[in-house]
Amino acid sequence: MNLEDMILVSVDDHVIEPPGAFTPHWPLHLKGREPHIERRDDRDVWVFEGKAAGYMGLNSVVGRPKEEYGMEPLNYAQMRPGTWNVHKRVEDMDANGIVGSICFATFPGFAGQRFQKTEDREAGLAAIRAYNDWHVHDWAGAAPGRFIPLMMIPFWDVRAAVEEIERMAKLGVHALAFSDNPAIMGFPSIHDPYWDPVWKACCDHKVVICCHIGTGAAAAHASDLSPIDAWITSMPISIANSAADWIWAPMWKKYPDLRMALSEGGIGWVPYLLERADFTHGQHSAWTHSDFGGKKPSDIFKKHIISCFIEDKFGLDNLDYIGEDMVMYECDYPHSDSVWPHSAEKLWEDIKHLSETTINKITHLNAMREFSYDPISQLSREAITVGALKRKAANVPVNTEPMLGLGGAAPKRDSERPVTSGDINRMFESAAAESTISGR
Amino acid sequence: MNLEDMILVSVDDHVIEPPGAFTPHWPLHLKGREPHIERRDDRDVWVFEGKAAGYMGLNSVVGRPKEEYGMEPLNYAQMRPGTWNVHKRVEDMDANGIVGSICFATFPGFAGQRFQKTEDREAGLAAIRAYNDWHVHDWAGAAPGRFIPLMMIPFWDVRAAVEEIERMAKLGVHALAFSDNPAIMGFPSIHDPYWDPVWKACCDHKVVICCHIGTGAAAAHASDLSPIDAWITSMPISIANSAADWIWAPMWKKYPDLRMALSEGGIGWVPYLLERADFTHGQHSAWTHSDFGGKKPSDIFKKHIISCFIEDKFGLDNLDYIGEDMVMYECDYPHSDSVWPHSAEKLWEDIKHLSETTINKITHLNAMREFSYDPISQLSREAITVGALKRKAANVPVNTEPMLGLGGAAPKRDSERPVTSGDINRMFESAAAESTISGR
Repeated sequence: MNLEDMILVSVDDHVIEPPGAFTPHWPLHLKGREPHIERRDDRDVWVFEGKAAGYMGLNSVVGRPKEEYGMEPLNYAQMRPGTWNVHKRVEDMDANGIVGSICFATFPGFAGQRFQKTEDREAGLAAIRAYNDWHVHDWAGAAPGRFIPLMMIPFWDVRAAVEEIERMAKLGVHALAFSDNPAIMGFPSIHDPYWDPVWKACCDHKVVICCHIGTGAAAAHASDLSPIDAWITSMPISIANSAADWIWAPMWKKYPDLRMALSEGGIGWVPYLLERADFTHGQHSAWTHSDFGGKKPSDIFKKHIISCFIEDKFGLDNLDYIGEDMVMYECDYPHSDSVWPHSAEKLWEDIKHLSETTINKITHLNAMREFSYDPISQLSREAITVGALKRKAANVPVNTEPMLGLGGAAPKRDSERPVTSGDINRMFESAAAESTISGR
Repeated sequence: MNLEDMILVSVDDHVIEPPGAFTPHWPLHLKGREPHIERRDDRDVWVFEGKAAGYMGLNSVVGRPKEEYGMEPLNYAQMRPGTWNVHKRVEDMDANGIVGSICFATFPGFAGQRFQKTEDREAGLAAIRAYNDWHVHDWAGAAPGRFIPLMMIPFWDVRAAVEEIERMAKLGVHALAFSDNPAIMGFPSIHDPYWDPVWKACCDHKVVICCHIGTGAAAAHASDLSPIDAWITSMPISIANSAADWIWAPMWKKYPDLRMALSEGGIGWVPYLLERADFTHGQHSAWTHSDFGGKKPSDIFKKHIISCFIEDKFGLDNLDYIGEDMVMYECDYPHSDSVWPHSAEKLWEDIKHLSETTINKITHLNAMREFSYDPISQLSREAITVGALKRKAANVPVNTEPMLGLGGAAPKRDSERPVTSGDINRMFESAAAESTISGR
């Protein structure tokens, strides 16, 4: 086996919603109230329910020179078209050797957080449904076999959530964007029976609960003066707190076929957490009365929880501790941790010593099984290898040279010190769409 | 080499301050204002500056049956005497095969947090100094060669802090209890030049900055309904955010011999964090302008940052990724993660496959070198091995049978579910000394 023979499915990428995404899917009786793009002060902003959203292109810096990775696109012209145009996206996936992709939302938040707090619940639910329709029909539907569609649900209404899961499942959607800790968002915790109908619907329809980092217990900025690199470093591992919480959560006993994913969480720290969880159970269960029916916490994790990696050589060298059946590859296009268009080459360096069986599992077979996704039947094995996709891109051809001078918001720099958390937070505050609009 | 030949130094244990600890070291001009124990409603409480402190025996459950690990001692009679009586402590260390120990404070907080927020700064400084004097003279001084003394400093006054470091260094103190993130406590962040005189004094006097978990970026309770096991599991790894922050902090360039320790942080996740830090630097430094002078973030960690483990087989199997020269063993007596009196036996199971050189480094040589501590010269090698200490304890003899029925605060239990974070937090609230007193 070599690099060209790999089949790569990425279970964590991001889509920038194109202008007009919601409009064709918006219910008639709420006409005119759909999220839409307005042009204000030389920037494109999403407007919904009287509020303008922040960046419509959050961290979408793929294809730029590394010197510009801290810049934030403020309009569509400042991004590589593959971030928001599905046909260009497929070309970029081809150039990167990626056959399939799960794309998390941007303007709504990875788990639809913006709509979860929309005051008018009817409008919020309409936005979630319209988003899902756009995502499954216009995004994933534009390129059959190339996407694993991902839905969002209303956290505030379990009955409507179940209806949405059932509606989407009928359309072939087997992935749900959820929060790693909805209690932080003010909703019932994952231990609350409130969610049981959602877990049941996911279990019944083979829908994986995908919890992206930042949707609950997000990494903290240690201080204003902390170099932003420190925050970037600890972003993925910050989901460890939630991972422990899911291990001890009650849904696994009730719904034994249910699965969840720690999207963008990394894998190298997982063996430590599993050992620690088993130690905790052995040392403390006599007084905490936690009960895994004779199993260990690590058994629960290995059966139900998918861990995901972008680059993680240490974790890949220790797959035996995690279990190679529940580990999946991620690309993170178009965010700044993505190494597009070199994802396949970087990955190959880290996995080429593994067996062909293991490589196939973590690159595509695990994702295909858990997400009920089968690009091999749909597109044929020969057409979807890294080599085949890259040859296809070369024939178009897809230009992968860094795009210079696109512009966007940039952190103020002080030549005396590195860019800090404070610099980044001030950049976000000063360029937030909200302030642009309130200042008009 | 076998179990009995090991020499064990524990760089993380805890002392319960005995009644009267502060009195003999209190300055005359503040006479009567020293922290002291009062008996209220059948419990012992520390009183200082008109405020009663919470538990005087926080989590001091060593020597109890596991069924009682969640109980919180409310008075001295509810604890094993070795928690607060130094002579009994040394016996318990003997029984456990531990020659040397760093003991973090309890009533003041691991890094003196209670005194850091004392309104009357003169009284706060007096308390810190009296604590240090008690700790070095009455606690560590009672058993020469058996403790690595640990000081605290006033965070609000760098000049006084430096004076205290110098005063304590003259008394042979080479460990400082600090916060893993003082910015969270409202003090300048570790990136602020405010701390430079402290770093300089530590570097000049070979004082290691010991940051215990919980002194800054503490683990969050995921939700009220979360089983407490989940929180216990993620406590150590929650220092990863701070670890990243220290890697990118500025003191290492200025004070190349400075060292810090992630006390009770665990080690198994460290290789992941170091790889992630190096990835971040490679992927992002072009725009963040972070500069390690050609070195990698992992080089900084390996040179300056001590990682510590209680039980951590996965980390011990991957010492090559961390560097075996900066890893140290911990016992955590008398907290509920301690496996006293079986610490040596549990440790041996996890390290017996390592080379004698490696075993000696992580059990005592690294700690001796970094903390300027030499029990071999003071007490002789033959007298301090696990075997020698355990034989000494057998001759006393030290009773290590679980002590039953000591009592204390207990979480309310609901037979339908495990003990939750909410149960524990409510136990703390309802039994807090503050409410006892305000209710009088």
